[in-house]
Amino acid sequence: MAPPQEDENTLKILLATDIHLGYMEKDPIRGNDSLVSFEEILEIAKKKEVDFILLGGDLYHDNKPSRRTLHGSMALLRRYCMGDKPIQYEFLSDQSVNFSHCQFPLLNYEDQNYNVSMPVFSIHGNHDDPTGTGNLCSLDLLHSAGLVNYFGKTSSLEKIQLSPLLLQKGTTKLALYGLGSVRDERLHRMFVHKNIAMLRPKENKDDWFNVFVIHQNRSKHSATNYIPEQFLDDFLDLVFWGHEHECRIDPEWNGNQNFYVTQPGSSIATSLSEGESAMKHVGLLMIRGKDFKMTKIPLETVRQFYIEDIVLSETTLSPDDHDISKKVEAYCQQKVENLLQKAEAEHTGNSKQPDKPLIRIRVDYAGGFEPFSVYRFGQKFVDRVANPKDVVLFQRKRVNTAKKEEGGE
Amino acid sequence: MAPPQEDENTLKILLATDIHLGYMEKDPIRGNDSLVSFEEILEIAKKKEVDFILLGGDLYHDNKPSRRTLHGSMALLRRYCMGDKPIQYEFLSDQSVNFSHCQFPLLNYEDQNYNVSMPVFSIHGNHDDPTGTGNLCSLDLLHSAGLVNYFGKTSSLEKIQLSPLLLQKGTTKLALYGLGSVRDERLHRMFVHKNIAMLRPKENKDDWFNVFVIHQNRSKHSATNYIPEQFLDDFLDLVFWGHEHECRIDPEWNGNQNFYVTQPGSSIATSLSEGESAMKHVGLLMIRGKDFKMTKIPLETVRQFYIEDIVLSETTLSPDDHDISKKVEAYCQQKVENLLQKAEAEHTGNSKQPDKPLIRIRVDYAGGFEPFSVYRFGQKFVDRVANPKDVVLFQRKRVNTAKKEEGGE
Ligand SMILES: [Mn+2]
Ligand SMILES: [Mn+2]
Ligand SMILES: [Mn+2]
Ligand SMILES: [Mn+2]
Repeated sequence: MAPPQEDENTLKILLATDIHLGYMEKDPIRGNDSLVSFEEILEIAKKKEVDFILLGGDLYHDNKPSRRTLHGSMALLRRYCMGDKPIQYEFLSDQSVNFSHCQFPLLNYEDQNYNVSMPVFSIHGNHDDPTGTGNLCSLDLLHSAGLVNYFGKTSSLEKIQLSPLLLQKGTTKLALYGLGSVRDERLHRMFVHKNIAMLRPKENKDDWFNVFVIHQNRSKHSATNYIPEQFLDDFLDLVFWGHEHECRIDPEWNGNQNFYVTQPGSSIATSLSEGESAMKHVGLLMIRGKDFKMTKIPLETVRQFYIEDIVLSETTLSPDDHDISKKVEAYCQQKVENLLQKAEAEHTGNSKQPDKPLIRIRVDYAGGFEPFSVYRFGQKFVDRVANPKDVVLFQRKRVNTAKKEEGGE
Repeated sequence: MAPPQEDENTLKILLATDIHLGYMEKDPIRGNDSLVSFEEILEIAKKKEVDFILLGGDLYHDNKPSRRTLHGSMALLRRYCMGDKPIQYEFLSDQSVNFSHCQFPLLNYEDQNYNVSMPVFSIHGNHDDPTGTGNLCSLDLLHSAGLVNYFGKTSSLEKIQLSPLLLQKGTTKLALYGLGSVRDERLHRMFVHKNIAMLRPKENKDDWFNVFVIHQNRSKHSATNYIPEQFLDDFLDLVFWGHEHECRIDPEWNGNQNFYVTQPGSSIATSLSEGESAMKHVGLLMIRGKDFKMTKIPLETVRQFYIEDIVLSETTLSPDDHDISKKVEAYCQQKVENLLQKAEAEHTGNSKQPDKPLIRIRVDYAGGFEPFSVYRFGQKFVDRVANPKDVVLFQRKRVNTAKKEEGGE
């Protein structure tokens, strides 16, 4: 992974995933968060003058997004992605194959009726997968409106053949594979039965830089409801893993498979879990020949989120203390105050980053302590946190059960 | 209304309204009807090489159309309306005023990122009016996707000022006013209180041909829940009345107001009433100077619909006849057979016109007759009519109560 020089042979791609447009859109405080960060991502892509944006699924939180969310996202895509800037790479594969599942089986920027300055390529996630009559999803709407290029849609339940999108910029050749979200157990089984085939360019196979975009469980939930990295073809150079919301965007080397894996993580926290509290990023992927470089770019508009665990039995508090209930509450209150101070100090300064952070205190009250009213506690912070109703979560076991809520979304 | 010559000064406009996309979309027989006729309308417009299409509201049947309907309509609009053909008229009014309620306050064909060969202009109807957060409707989605030009959206509850779209082709000048559906009582009151103002071009007022598109009750339901024609300004030349589903497309002269009214009617029957059984049409409006000509064009793909009234007491049947119940049923059955024969004979021959017609027999059984099972009766025609469940409607009075179901939809 030698950092390539940026020149006319460098493909610049913005990687982002799990934007979850419309998440909590009815919440008066958090309702706009997802669209704000989507706009930031588009802004970054524009500023970095990327060749295209690559999304890893779950662009929408709801399978049937509200009109407001659909309209807001279409308007942003039109505003940022339509324009006169020429596309500086060639498309070499057969569009009618790559987009065979779309009513307009071609790239939006190759339709002479649309001027596209910054193409978006996306697979679907489990939140925005095709359903119902016609097996359509929200990305079909965007594709048919000329706003995105929706790929990786498969229909077979038996066998999947993935034909890569083949792009060439100068001397750099990219084979881009994508597979929209499939139920993990089913995909697991298909892999085991060798029913997933990744087609490769016929000529000069080894000249291509091979990227695979996937939206599945990466962490093992049970024996078969995740996709082990070793299932993936080892000719791949980089796997772009969507669905997992924790940012692990720095490419991780898999020595068995001889590929890197990047997991950009979501651009919004859809659960108040450890993994979601990590800083959110998108990635600037530069590919030159067979080399690549990933630059992580922090998102400045994402609502801050701090989580802290308290084990009451490990504090100086004792269940026998006078007024212990009030003392526990005061203790928790101080923790929240500390996190609020931290949030204030760490605010990015971006005017679009909200002021009220998400705060979560997980309180293990094992050992004879009593929980207090979570609702009443939250009321103290109603003007200062974005989630007053669930600032505190009581747990009874010292063992960390919170792991359950981790993982893909 | 002298028929103008067609030349470089002739504006050609296709008028259509109440297309009700998605109507009965879950019905296995009728589910596709609305999209089929929408495509026929687009085809006609393309074939006639109109300058633009003008829609009178209720493009969608449901305020929140299904994804299938939304996608189907977007795909058709892209297929028929995007293209290289130059627009042969000038737009003279301020787009940012005409489309001030849109996030992209400009004409789709004036956005250099879109190639539009056949613009569509539309107001909203009562079925697809703006609602919810952001006060958006389906036409906002189409407008922001560059597929239609959505005008006539007002927000004031107090006072409405209508700024016309001003178009000029050669020497012909068109002032196009539009008002999306407003609750009839409210609009009635606003008219009474002189709170509706139609702004006029400052110069050479009398050179303009003035068209007003409106989507309200035209027929009087009660004293205030319709808009009397005399409420409308008499400088108008032609009123395009949407919402009323009966085809009365031939312009009707209103001598008091000195304007014509054309009511194209819906392109799909959304109720089994008399008015809906008239042949469905769209209109080719040609305007040259202050003259215009309307050519009605029958829609060939619309599902046939026949309705007939039977008053049992006026037949040779008597309640005292032996086996009268069977005889009544046989009588009705014969009527349906006759209508089915008629339908077969009158089929347009267009391969997209469905074979199974809608049939409705309204049976007045006053005078001692008994109704039979409507469901069982319909089963006899389950393979031959599109509406087996409601072929027969029993009524008890000789007075025609069916008028109630007539009127705007
Ligand atoms: Mn997911
Ligand atoms: Mn997700
Ligand atoms: Mn209507
Ligand atoms: Mn209607």
